[in-house]
Amino acid sequence: MSRIVMKFGGTSVANVERIRNVAAHVKREVDAGNEVAVVVSAMSGATNQLVAWTKEASAIHDARDDAIVASGEQVTSGLLAIALQAIGVPARSFQGWQIPLRTDAAHGAARIESIDGSALISRMTDGQVPVIAGFQGIGPDERIATLGRGGSDTSAVAVAAAVNADRCDIYTDVDGIYTTDPRIVPQARRLDRIAFEEMLEMASLGAKVMQVRSVEMAMVHKVRVFVRSSFDAPDAIQSGPDGEPLGTLICDEDEIVESQVVTGIAYSKDEAQITLRRVADRPGVAAGVFGPLAEASINVDMIVQTISEDGKTTDITFTLPTADQARAVEILNAKKTEIGFEALNTETDACKVSVIGIGMRSHAGVAAQAFEALAKRGVNIRAITTSEIKISVLIDTAFAELAVRTLHSVYGLDKA
Amino acid sequence: MSRIVMKFGGTSVANVERIRNVAAHVKREVDAGNEVAVVVSAMSGATNQLVAWTKEASAIHDARDDAIVASGEQVTSGLLAIALQAIGVPARSFQGWQIPLRTDAAHGAARIESIDGSALISRMTDGQVPVIAGFQGIGPDERIATLGRGGSDTSAVAVAAAVNADRCDIYTDVDGIYTTDPRIVPQARRLDRIAFEEMLEMASLGAKVMQVRSVEMAMVHKVRVFVRSSFDAPDAIQSGPDGEPLGTLICDEDEIVESQVVTGIAYSKDEAQITLRRVADRPGVAAGVFGPLAEASINVDMIVQTISEDGKTTDITFTLPTADQARAVEILNAKKTEIGFEALNTETDACKVSVIGIGMRSHAGVAAQAFEALAKRGVNIRAITTSEIKISVLIDTAFAELAVRTLHSVYGLDKA
Repeated sequence: MSRIVMKFGGTSVANVERIRNVAAHVKREVDAGNEVAVVVSAMSGATNQLVAWTKEASAIHDARDDAIVASGEQVTSGLLAIALQAIGVPARSFQGWQIPLRTDAAHGAARIESIDGSALISRMTDGQVPVIAGFQGIGPDERIATLGRGGSDTSAVAVAAAVNADRCDIYTDVDGIYTTDPRIVPQARRLDRIAFEEMLEMASLGAKVMQVRSVEMAMVHKVRVFVRSSFDAPDAIQSGPDGEPLGTLICDEDEIVESQVVTGIAYSKDEAQITLRRVADRPGVAAGVFGPLAEASINVDMIVQTISEDGKTTDITFTLPTADQARAVEILNAKKTEIGFEALNTETDACKVSVIGIGMRSHAGVAAQAFEALAKRGVNIRAITTSEIKISVLIDTAFAELAVRTLHSVYGLDKA
Repeated sequence: MSRIVMKFGGTSVANVERIRNVAAHVKREVDAGNEVAVVVSAMSGATNQLVAWTKEASAIHDARDDAIVASGEQVTSGLLAIALQAIGVPARSFQGWQIPLRTDAAHGAARIESIDGSALISRMTDGQVPVIAGFQGIGPDERIATLGRGGSDTSAVAVAAAVNADRCDIYTDVDGIYTTDPRIVPQARRLDRIAFEEMLEMASLGAKVMQVRSVEMAMVHKVRVFVRSSFDAPDAIQSGPDGEPLGTLICDEDEIVESQVVTGIAYSKDEAQITLRRVADRPGVAAGVFGPLAEASINVDMIVQTISEDGKTTDITFTLPTADQARAVEILNAKKTEIGFEALNTETDACKVSVIGIGMRSHAGVAAQAFEALAKRGVNIRAITTSEIKISVLIDTAFAELAVRTLHSVYGLDKA
C-alpha cells in the first residue's frame, strides 16, 4: 500500500466526461489498495474566462479579490468528488481554507507557508479521497489567496509533502519528460527517471511540463513526482513507477541507478542580448548594472564577463527576454555615467541551447564534445555559460533546431 | 445617514456591464452618506450551468458538495467588489464562511442559524462596502452550505437583521409589488407599501418577486424591505422610500398610514383537487389523511372539511399541485381501510384566486362582496377558505383571468 497524491491539470478536467475519466484513474489507485488524495486545476478555459471578467470589471484591481479566479478549482474539486461518489469511491472536496493551506499575503502570486495535513490524513486513513482545489490557499488576512498561474502543481507537491506521500503523480497531456522536444527531434526518448536538479534545469529552460516552483519544492521536500498522461485509458496502464507504467519519475539522484552523462537537451528562443563595452573594472560594477534591472523586474539569464580588448576594462554580456530589451537599454543608458561604460551593443534573435546531465559532474570533456559537434555543423556560438550539471550556448535562432538535433545525437540520446 | 443592505439578483448581475451598473447604484447610496453592504446572486445562467454539470457528474450525489453551486455567487461578489474599487468605492468580497454566516446541516436547502455581523459592521463604519455572496453559508461540518434556490433574498434579509440595517433594498427586474399580475390586469397599480403579512400571502400565492422564507424572516426581525428595479438608471432615481423612489416598501403594518381594505389579488394555477367521501368522523382522521402526504413531501394547500350528505360522516376536500396528484391518490388508496373513506374523487384544472388585505380584519362584508361579484360573472366556486387577511376561492382554470379582473375591479384596485 502506498499513499499517493494525484494531480490533474486543466485539459484533464476540461468537461464532465473528462472528469469521469479522471475518477476512473483515481478508482484504479484506490482499488489497488492505495491511500489517495487528489489535487485538481480548473476546467481548461474556466480560469481564462474568470480572468477576462475580472479585467472587464476593472483594469486595475485589488488582487485580494482572487476569490473570483479561485472559484474555477472550487467547481472542479466538487465535480470530481461527486463523480467519485457515483462510482462508489467515498470522496469529498476540500478548498484551500478548509485544509487549511496557509499562504503569505501576496495575493495572486502567493507562496505556500504551511499545510496542516491532519484533516487530509484522517480522511485518507478512513478510506475517503480528499479532492483538493489546487492553486489556492488562505492568506494571513483570512481571505482566499491564489498561488499564481500553474500553481496547482505546487499545491500538489506541497500536499504530498504535508501528508508524507510516497509519490505525487502529475497527470498531464503528455506521457512524461522527454530527452528533448519531440517536435524538433522525432527520435527523442521518454526518460524513465530524471533527477530533481536536472528537471529544474529542463523546466526553467522551456520544457513546460511542470512549473519550476513545484520542482524546487519537490526537491526540497524530497517528494517523488511521477509525470504521466491522463489521456491513457484508466484500465490499460499499471499504477506506478515500480510496475510498467508510461511516465517519468522525478526523484533524488540516488534513485537513478544507471545514470547517463547527459539526460536531455533544452532550448529557449526569443532571447535578446546586451553587451556593455569597456566597463570600468572595479568592485560593485555588476551590482551597478544588474541592480536597476532587477528593480524593474527584468529577468536576466546568462551573464558573461570578459576582459575588454584594451586589457584594462571589462565587457559584460547578458541575455534577457526580447520583450524586455528596449526597457533594459533605456534603464542602462540613463545610468551610463554612474555605471561607467563606453558603449552598449544589442543583438536579438538569439536562442539558448542547453545540455543537461548530473553525470557531467564526474565526466570530463562533455563541454568540449558539444563545441566540437556544433563547430562541425557551422553553428557559431555567441556566448557560453556552464554550471555543474549544465552547459548552455547562445546561438543564432536560425540554427536552433540544427543545434538541438546535433547535440541530441552526439550524446547518444536518439532512440534506437 | 442610514445603514442599507442592497441585494441584486441574477438578471441584475447577468454580465460585467450589468455589474458595473450595479456598482453605480451602490456608489449613489454611498455618496448619499449611507453605510452600505451588498448581497449578490450568481450571474443569471451561472447557477443553471453549475447544476447541470453537477447532475452530469452524478445523478444522485452528496448534497454536501454544494461548493460547486456556491461558486456562482463567489464570482459575482468578487467582480462587484473590484468594479466598486474601479469607481473609487472601497469594497471587498465576503464569502459566507468569512462572515461567518452559520447554517444548519441541510446542505442544498440549509437554514440560517446565526450571522456574526461584527466584521461587516466594522467594515461599514470604516467606509468600506462588504460585497457578500448570497445563497451560501458555512454548515456545522465547516463546509459550504447553500440555502436553496432564491436563497439570496434570505441572505440579504438575514444580513440586514444582523447589522441592524435601516432597510434592505431588493433590486430586481420589476419595480415593485403590484396589486395583481399586470399581464392579466393592465390597470394593476404598484403598491407604495405592503405589510409583511400581506406580502407573505402574495408571495406564497404566486407573486414571484421574493421568496416566502425571506419575507417570513423580514417579518420576524422587522426588517424593512424595499423592492425596486435595477434596470432604472442609477442617477435618475431617488435613494429611498422617504424620497420619491419607484418601488414598494414591505414593512410593519404600523407604518402603513392609509391602509386599504384590500391590497391585492393573487392567483395560482395548476391546482388539483382531491375529495375523500364519507370519511369516518372520528378524532385523528385528518392526521390519518395528511400525515402520509406530508411524509411524501406533498404540499397540501386549501383544506375544506364538511359534513357528508348522509349527515353522519365527513367529506374532506383539499388542493395540491397537479404534478403530485397521481402520487397522492396512490398513497391514499393504499391506506383506504386505515383512514376509512368510501370514495375518492379527483378534479384538475383548478385555479386558486385570493383576495388579500390587512384591512379585512376590521371590515365586514369583504367576502360576500367577492362571492357576489363572481356569481354575477357566472364564475362557479368549487371551494372557499378564509383567514384573517385573506379569502381564497377555488375555481375552474378557464375562469382564472376573468375572476382576477373582476375582483381587482370590485375592490377599487384599478388605477385611475
